[in-house]
Amino acid sequence: MNVSNVVDNEAFQTTKSQNAKRIQHTMHLTKEAILKLDRIKRINIINSVSGIKPANLIGTKSKSGNNNLAIFSSVVHLGSTPGYFGFIMRPTGEVRRDTYDNIMETGVFTINHIHASFAEQGHYTSAKFDADVSEFETCGLSPEFKLDFEAPFVKESTLKMALKHVETVPIKATNTIMVIGEIQHLFFPDSSMNEDGMIDLEALDDIGISGLNTYYQLKKMASYPFARATELPNFDS
Amino acid sequence: MNVSNVVDNEAFQTTKSQNAKRIQHTMHLTKEAILKLDRIKRINIINSVSGIKPANLIGTKSKSGNNNLAIFSSVVHLGSTPGYFGFIMRPTGEVRRDTYDNIMETGVFTINHIHASFAEQGHYTSAKFDADVSEFETCGLSPEFKLDFEAPFVKESTLKMALKHVETVPIKATNTIMVIGEIQHLFFPDSSMNEDGMIDLEALDDIGISGLNTYYQLKKMASYPFARATELPNFDS
Repeated sequence: MNVSNVVDNEAFQTTKSQNAKRIQHTMHLTKEAILKLDRIKRINIINSVSGIKPANLIGTKSKSGNNNLAIFSSVVHLGSTPGYFGFIMRPTGEVRRDTYDNIMETGVFTINHIHASFAEQGHYTSAKFDADVSEFETCGLSPEFKLDFEAPFVKESTLKMALKHVETVPIKATNTIMVIGEIQHLFFPDSSMNEDGMIDLEALDDIGISGLNTYYQLKKMASYPFARATELPNFDS
Repeated sequence: MNVSNVVDNEAFQTTKSQNAKRIQHTMHLTKEAILKLDRIKRINIINSVSGIKPANLIGTKSKSGNNNLAIFSSVVHLGSTPGYFGFIMRPTGEVRRDTYDNIMETGVFTINHIHASFAEQGHYTSAKFDADVSEFETCGLSPEFKLDFEAPFVKESTLKMALKHVETVPIKATNTIMVIGEIQHLFFPDSSMNEDGMIDLEALDDIGISGLNTYYQLKKMASYPFARATELPNFDS
């Protein structure tokens, strides 16, 4: 054992014990307390508390030929025959929503996973650019066209899919909409899938989002069997 | 440099070069090809391709007093004033949906983050238990009641919230529903939040889900500033 090990261990123990102490302090915010928070702080907190979110780029093209690309953390699985996905948009009308307008014009869009290698590029697609500006160009990503599909894919993305718009669902409580698409084409690296069809998100170097601007890498931890009430592990401990 | 270092490096290089080769093979599945896949494989693939999903336990209580707990990977942020969240449910009617029935009976539910320390317990709440069986008991988790709120929280969870049901949105394309709640109370460790209100999901030991049964730990990678079109990094490289 050398001196630097001793110091490291002591520092580690101190940190652990401080963490243990701090973790005991629970913040309790009521609805009223949340509404009184500073706006930015409120938005950051509430955007974090649903947990980790997927990091996807949605690619669209306007009728007049402009490519658009925007980051979305709200893509959610809705069905598996053949595959339906929704994502949440803020109200249209108030401000320009190129993604929505383009989907209404062409009926199609792409969903492209963001990988760690281009997290920053993906993040900056959330800036407000003029309608005739392509986020592909300003953010250093490459549009890719495949199979005569009208919407652009992200070349840098290794898992991507083409979707056809099938439904828009209004959500009254939040004056938002869920835009829903049906999968038409799916592309991903052979090597990322096992024989049961499970796709390894760590091997893809996928990332997750918390709040509006923090990105997390993924480390596979465990796979558990399909859960049956008659085959439970022993949880007594 | 010792021998074990050399061996490790060689193994690493070989693996990297094999990965580089394998990653070149792209799987392309059309909608028709997806529909022809073996059912389990199709479900596993399609449940993976939206990216990482949050791991939450939803706690409810029936009018007759039974506690219910179920894992959901579809919780999505809908609004921040004061905080609205939705989650997707399969059709009711066909089979028993305790979570939905309880929310309709009491008007309330809780959302509780799953941490790495009880990932397996959380996973097994997806088994089909009888209506009068509490998943808390069968899966080794502890119901916790706070502030006269009618639905149970998960004691083991350090980030949890109480919600009031405000809307149920039908999704025709997939015959599913989105159940929406408004935040009433929010609890989390002080130490996990920075001064801007960003909550550190790695510090919370939060996990993410891919597909139906694979769990990932999170490693914070980067936070980027609010994106402005006039303040872009230099992406040329």
